[in-house]
Formats: sequence, structure tokens, C-alpha cells
Amino acid sequence: MSHIEDRLRDLGFQLGPAKAPVANYLGCKRVGDVLYVSARVSELRGALGIDVTLEEGRLAARETVLVILAIVKDAVGDLDRIASVDKMIGFVHSGPGFTQQPQVIDGASDLLVALWGDRGRHARTATGVAQLPYGSAVQLEMTMSMHPEA
Amino acid sequence: MSHIEDRLRDLGFQLGPAKAPVANYLGCKRVGDVLYVSARVSELRGALGIDVTLEEGRLAARETVLVILAIVKDAVGDLDRIASVDKMIGFVHSGPGFTQQPQVIDGASDLLVALWGDRGRHARTATGVAQLPYGSAVQLEMTMSMHPEA
Amino acid sequence: MSHIEDRLRDLGFQLGPAKAPVANYLGCKRVGDVLYVSARVSELRGALGIDVTLEEGRLAARETVLVILAIVKDAVGDLDRIASVDKMIGFVHSGPGFTQQPQVIDGASDLLVALWGDRGRHARTATGVAQLPYGSAVQLEMTMSMHPEA
Repeated sequence: MSHIEDRLRDLGFQLGPAKAPVANYLGCKRVGDVLYVSARVSELRGALGIDVTLEEGRLAARETVLVILAIVKDAVGDLDRIASVDKMIGFVHSGPGFTQQPQVIDGASDLLVALWGDRGRHARTATGVAQLPYGSAVQLEMTMSMHPEA
Repeated sequence: MSHIEDRLRDLGFQLGPAKAPVANYLGCKRVGDVLYVSARVSELRGALGIDVTLEEGRLAARETVLVILAIVKDAVGDLDRIASVDKMIGFVHSGPGFTQQPQVIDGASDLLVALWGDRGRHARTATGVAQLPYGSAVQLEMTMSMHPEA
Repeated sequence: MSHIEDRLRDLGFQLGPAKAPVANYLGCKRVGDVLYVSARVSELRGALGIDVTLEEGRLAARETVLVILAIVKDAVGDLDRIASVDKMIGFVHSGPGFTQQPQVIDGASDLLVALWGDRGRHARTATGVAQLPYGSAVQLEMTMSMHPEA
């Protein structure tokens, strides 16, 4: 049994669908014990400060983590093989004057720490962009560490 | 003879000019077997969705790879020393409502995979920004792995 | 005595305040000898090309480095433990038509090289975004290498 998936269920969440990329790139790439995870965008579309509220953006960030974790599980077999979350960049689709990008991305950080505890704490960049793929509200990319092969 | 450069020629391409940065940073920095490659912008200027078409953007992304590879060759001596392409961030200068950033960056990903095969497949972020240096259409940064020193 | 802090004083600078993040992420995360440093924004607010000049932006980039170095010192104990600066991404809050992002971020790169010499030279991305947290002018994130534990 996967401890991380147990905790996810205890928190009332479930993994999103593990959609493979449709082009010449990977959902994640492992290099030694480093796992580079491709960016995913939220299902929720729209710009913060225009048609998406802060609370909706925060939930979108959290749901994007669930999609990313499904892809990571698919790639590495078991989320328990992730030793730590090291870095995250969160791009927030921001209307003019919207400056609460960190509060949006907190929705992602909080879930990662709820799942991995201190090992889920990460270095982070939260920034604002004018446009995202498909008009999405939030985009996240991560770098993780894996437990060395037994 | 360099296998990667052979393949490049077979595909009908040639390396761009290896312009060194004009400021206090490097074209790429090697740390152990990790090669951090500085961002380069496309020669093509303009915003996708305003004055640059999707197909023009895709070609600009591909040509930016050729410029980056020239810089990498200049830094490491031979492109055959690159073991894999691990991560790429593509910033697309996007006009209002342009949301096909991934399709633009596919122009870069496709060439990397044509050259390095599966080892060229990478984790990727394609995002939209309001402005790029010199008004360029596309900007790419990469992280690569090098073969350990013989 | 810290050599890097000595040099900082000789240059007439002092470390900024080491403000800890107020959310579920870290000022920096160490993974082996890699140090991922979270993005920090400048105190200076406003957009380049609208209400911030190039020279003001350059100074803001430099001051943001001083804030980041205070956080790094707080996390690792002594800036002399930093072996090299490997990568930096600089996001510049850019008004319409502002395209001198690299010249703004030079303010950060120049200080890093003044402090660490050639080991301070880094791979770099300077890009333009429509909005930053708190409306700040500049945002910087870095990846550094640490000297292995003695």
C-alpha cells in the first residue's frame, strides 16, 4: 500500500487522470535521483482578477497538483518513491493589477506539505503571466527527488 | 566526426552562430554532469496571435534550438558529449487570447528528439509572456546532462 | 570571518533582511550539494517602461540579490559555503514595448560576479511578465552549488 496515496484519501482527495503528453516531450524525466516534472495547467480557465477569484485559483492550483501526481505515479510506479519535493514554479494567469500570485500557489504548496510533511517543503517561484496554454488559470512545474533504487 | 552534427546535416539544418553573452553570465554552465543552458531568444520578433503566425512561431522555436546548440558545442567541444536533454522552458511572446504556446514550443522539442532520439525527450514548460527581450517571439532555456568524463 | 561578506562590505553593500516565507515553502532547499533558492521580489514596485526606469530596475535587481543572500546565509550559516551560482531566472515586470529585460537583470548578475568571481558566473534567463507579486518590479530565483560538507 502506498502511504502517500493513503494520506491523499484520508484528506478526501483522489489522483487526477494521468494524461500523457501529446507531443515530443515527457510527463516527467528522471535523471539519476532527480525527477523533472513537466508543467501542467489547470482545468479551470480564465484570468485571476478578471474571471477567476483568489479562492477559485487556489483550488485550481491544488487540483493541478493532483493531475501532476497522477502523472508522476504513472512514471515512477508509486508515489512513495518520491523522497522530497524540491522546487516548484507556479505561473498564474493574471489580469491587470492582480498581484496575489503567491496566495494562489499556496493551494499547491499546502497540499504537497500535507502529503509529504517537511520533505514536501520546497523552494518556490510564483509569478504572473499574461496568458497560459488553453487559457488556463494556473500552470505548475516541479522538480522532485526520488529515493535511490533499492 | 560528431554523430549529432551528422544527423543535423542529414535533416538539412546547420548550427546557428555561437554568440557569446555580452554581460556577466555564461552561455551555459556545467556543474558535475549537469549543463544549465542560458535562455536564447529567436531572431524573429513579434507576438504570436498579433504579428507572428503559429507556423512562424514553430520555426522560430526550431531555429532558436540551432543557436543554443551552437553555444553548447562551443562550450563543451562536441554535441556528442550531451547525453540527454532533460528540461526545457519555452516562453512564447503572446498577444491577447493566444493560447497555443505548446504547439509553438513543439518546434523545438521535435528537433531535439530528431537529433537525440529518446534521450532527447524532456520535461517541458511552455508558457505565455507579455514581452520578451528585443521583442522576440520565442525564448528557450534548457537543462542537459553530459556524458561523464572518460 | 566570511570572505564573501567581507567583499560585500568592501563594495559598500550590506545584506538585506532575511525574511522567512510566510507560507508552506522554504527560502531555500538543499538537496545534496544543490541549493534551490526561492524567488524573491524587489521592494521597488511598478513596471519597467511605465513607472520604473532601466537604472531603477537594475538597482532593484541588485537589491533583490542582497535579500536573497541574507536568506541563503540564514539557511546555510555562511555565504562562504556557496561554491558557485549556477542558474538564475529573472522576471521583469514589463510595460508594453519594454524589451530590455537582460539589462535590468545585469544588475543582479554583476553583483554575483563581483562577489564570487568566475564561480559567480551563471546560466541565465531574463524574461518579461505582465505582473509580479505585490506589483514588484523584479523577481529573481537562483540555483547554487554548495561546497561538500567537510
